[in-house]
Amino acid sequence: MNATIELLKSHRSIRKFTDEAVTDEQVREIVSAGQAAATSSNVQAVTVIQVNSMATRESMAELAGGQTWVTEAGVFMVWCADLRRSGAACARAGGDFEQGMTEHFLIATVDVGLAAQNAVIAAESLGLGICYIGGLRNNPAKVSELLGLPEQVYPVFGLCLGHPAQDPDIKPRLSVDAVLMQDTYSDAQQDAHFDDYNERLGHYYQTRTGGTKVSQWTDEMKKLVGKESRPHMRGFLDDQGFKMR
Amino acid sequence: MNATIELLKSHRSIRKFTDEAVTDEQVREIVSAGQAAATSSNVQAVTVIQVNSMATRESMAELAGGQTWVTEAGVFMVWCADLRRSGAACARAGGDFEQGMTEHFLIATVDVGLAAQNAVIAAESLGLGICYIGGLRNNPAKVSELLGLPEQVYPVFGLCLGHPAQDPDIKPRLSVDAVLMQDTYSDAQQDAHFDDYNERLGHYYQTRTGGTKVSQWTDEMKKLVGKESRPHMRGFLDDQGFKMR
Repeated sequence: MNATIELLKSHRSIRKFTDEAVTDEQVREIVSAGQAAATSSNVQAVTVIQVNSMATRESMAELAGGQTWVTEAGVFMVWCADLRRSGAACARAGGDFEQGMTEHFLIATVDVGLAAQNAVIAAESLGLGICYIGGLRNNPAKVSELLGLPEQVYPVFGLCLGHPAQDPDIKPRLSVDAVLMQDTYSDAQQDAHFDDYNERLGHYYQTRTGGTKVSQWTDEMKKLVGKESRPHMRGFLDDQGFKMR
Repeated sequence: MNATIELLKSHRSIRKFTDEAVTDEQVREIVSAGQAAATSSNVQAVTVIQVNSMATRESMAELAGGQTWVTEAGVFMVWCADLRRSGAACARAGGDFEQGMTEHFLIATVDVGLAAQNAVIAAESLGLGICYIGGLRNNPAKVSELLGLPEQVYPVFGLCLGHPAQDPDIKPRLSVDAVLMQDTYSDAQQDAHFDDYNERLGHYYQTRTGGTKVSQWTDEMKKLVGKESRPHMRGFLDDQGFKMR
């Protein structure tokens, strides 16, 4: 294992930060490392909004379900999928932006994922800790209002960056054998992987919480996909111009 | 700039590969580095299918629009967004998988983006070159059939991995000032950024093609978003169980 892979494998979310500042130079370096990721047809459908206003950060911390680290991190930014820029570029070249395609929504969303993860690796290589904030999607309309997002732009997730003031364990993952398949999709052994992972994850939670949190992955998945989740998302995306046709 | 950021910023797609093999051990290391990325609510909604069958790879190269590197790369894999596994885990815990939520589609798709980009960085740190193959979405139904993908799983993109047999220049990106904004969304200066980028990108293409390819970013965007793109995607995702509600 080389040093880069070691860095990749040492990721854990950081939710407590020291007061040490993240410099503007670091932020630019991190975002431009994000831009270096592959992008579908060179669309570069990513906009990053660094949120400096503490009032806005407090609103976002609250609507994300009381995630205080949104205000406490050195830097908080919102990663947006942005087709408005490519639409404007298209118009500049004399074209008519064909809005509402599912495929364009998909490439913009994937672009954000690739760029953000590159940025995260850059940040972690600088000794910073990070935490993705999917909780912004609890109220994406309010987030969009706070950031003044126009149509064809939507907030995919937030990202906290800062100097870590905690050193949590790395959360175990499913066995690589559960996710890497050969030639065709296979359900084989999935049950055995669940057993194995429930046990390892349970051990991790017990160690981390001193025995107070007892949870299994299968229970976590029941909570996550066993009920409706953010049923407002479809309507929000529609209102924001992502018609999914 | 540290060595990791230097690696991130040195990315370019590789489409010519030597015959040197990528080992199974490397593939497992790369995929498990992918798994180490953050995942929304620990859902780990990623399945990677390594395609060994040369007949399947030939079909995929063709449906991706004649991308011969799909067959020539040491390894070709398809990265799939997979809610079937979490659905099965939910059932195992006594729950009923709530299918078709846009939010679940989104977290699975973002999970694939984060994991794949981590895997790509791992691969590049090992000296391998990569190329994402979004062209699989030209015919995602056929790809799904070839891989035997069940409902709640869809192919997001392919990925070629191999030892590089070319050393292309790095493609310039939009200025970081065009994508990094403060507090609120701003269109300011976008036109100036287009001018600047058209010029830099034009120079890159000219150098790379010996003057034969003359293209501007604004023209590229007209081609990409100035017309319908893969209008079958919505129906395909619907058929695959991603109802977007």
